[in-house]
Amino acid sequence: MFTGLCAFPLTPFKDEQFDPVAFARIINNLTDAKVDAICAMGSTGLYPYLNNDERRTVAENAVALADGIPVMAGIGALRTRDVLHNADIVQRAGVNAVLLAPMSYHHLHDEEVYALYEKVTANLSVPLCVYENPNATNFTFSDELYQAISRLPNVAAVKIPGMPFGDKVQGEQRLARLRELVPDSLSIGVSADKFGVAGMRAGCDAWHSVLAGLFPKTVQCLIQAVRDGQGESAAMASDRLSPIWQLFVQSKGGLRVMATAADILGVCEGNCLPHPLKPLTGPARQELEAQLTSLQLD
Amino acid sequence: MFTGLCAFPLTPFKDEQFDPVAFARIINNLTDAKVDAICAMGSTGLYPYLNNDERRTVAENAVALADGIPVMAGIGALRTRDVLHNADIVQRAGVNAVLLAPMSYHHLHDEEVYALYEKVTANLSVPLCVYENPNATNFTFSDELYQAISRLPNVAAVKIPGMPFGDKVQGEQRLARLRELVPDSLSIGVSADKFGVAGMRAGCDAWHSVLAGLFPKTVQCLIQAVRDGQGESAAMASDRLSPIWQLFVQSKGGLRVMATAADILGVCEGNCLPHPLKPLTGPARQELEAQLTSLQLD
Repeated sequence: MFTGLCAFPLTPFKDEQFDPVAFARIINNLTDAKVDAICAMGSTGLYPYLNNDERRTVAENAVALADGIPVMAGIGALRTRDVLHNADIVQRAGVNAVLLAPMSYHHLHDEEVYALYEKVTANLSVPLCVYENPNATNFTFSDELYQAISRLPNVAAVKIPGMPFGDKVQGEQRLARLRELVPDSLSIGVSADKFGVAGMRAGCDAWHSVLAGLFPKTVQCLIQAVRDGQGESAAMASDRLSPIWQLFVQSKGGLRVMATAADILGVCEGNCLPHPLKPLTGPARQELEAQLTSLQLD
Repeated sequence: MFTGLCAFPLTPFKDEQFDPVAFARIINNLTDAKVDAICAMGSTGLYPYLNNDERRTVAENAVALADGIPVMAGIGALRTRDVLHNADIVQRAGVNAVLLAPMSYHHLHDEEVYALYEKVTANLSVPLCVYENPNATNFTFSDELYQAISRLPNVAAVKIPGMPFGDKVQGEQRLARLRELVPDSLSIGVSADKFGVAGMRAGCDAWHSVLAGLFPKTVQCLIQAVRDGQGESAAMASDRLSPIWQLFVQSKGGLRVMATAADILGVCEGNCLPHPLKPLTGPARQELEAQLTSLQLD
């Protein structure tokens, strides 16, 4: 399940409550496209914002709707106690893997992060994907930490920031260095959609995609082009999406862009974000509307 | 309650459970010193790490132990729904004020933060202190936002980062600018203890102090010296504490230093932090032990 496209859908809300109807629309679109995996409650799926009842409901709905496609679920929390509890909730719901970022309020030390993964992986019955997202967690994994954590039981994948792939040589060097550090069996997946094509061209095993949460076929086409040796044309196709990548940057991440797109497309009714998060408004929303029309995302 | 010293005590844990015995030792030390205010569940008091039962218990214990000293309580959370609930919990417990930082996982926009404060302040029956802590929340308040939020009902104070006070002129300019922006009645308090004396010398109304959570008299002496026109001598006394400020920086904040000091002093039994957070070990702990002996903090 850690090869190819892993789509990261929104967890849609309606008046502060999880919206199962909108969620079903989103997941059905992913199963129709036959994505390789679905990650419910990734960052875009708002894992840190959910209470336990919501987490259970979202996990159960995702598994029930996934139509045999493997489901991963985010389990991060500030306390190890809560991470363990989250893992228990989503495993009981039947997920096939878990995604764990070292969430922080007080910035974490390496030995704290190692101990977190050590404790959690020792208590898992499904594979775990290590999730580096320095923007949201204020934590950057050192090489030594990747080396150590990747050898813990049940660690099957890592989801790394795409930034190094902004430069071809740097990206290839980063991936080569990571391959030296971790077991051969470990899947290395790229995130930050802007860098997805570059990451796949450099040899990443998977693309963990926010855009694919609503537009799986668009991302599948890019991946297929890379696989078919059409890397240059995939890169050009990705560049044509730069108005979207630009909106991701402007609005501090893909979440609000995807939530607004879900509204524009009628996938959800109006604002699907919980307060205080807000969808795009004004010129940013108009720009997204225009781009959705002109780019023909699918 | 927003003038002078507001002490920010630890919320001590023992084997993942709130430790009321250690907490009583900590709060009794603050009431003995007659601090001007106590902030339970500030960042050092681990507000984002507590579940609702813990939050209720800590608030009730703080109020019961405070011996008439005003108690403020942290109510931050990622979702507005949870902030409102936290406010309800601590107000029922009898706190005199609440402290609210715009916690984020997805970085927040100005209009989201304004809407958060608007909603929360409209539902409060006690004063609120706006808490800017960019390091932990990834959010920096713009001047326009301070101006707008400071005019909301029940907003009585702001707790600002101490960094500008690292330079005398910059600190005075920052404070003068803030005074122009906010109502005259608003208390402006400095945080980050390294900059506390400089902030008070520049004219801040309050010092929100992590060090005072265990060592209130030390900080009271510094404040008194500033009030007595002995600013230069207060600055020198603060500089003599630079090994402590250095440990704060090295260990990514004061939390682990204070937790380790609580252990060294016998205020708590061993590690008082919840996992994955860990106290200082090795040379850092030895350095703290040596400094606690030589600096005679009180």
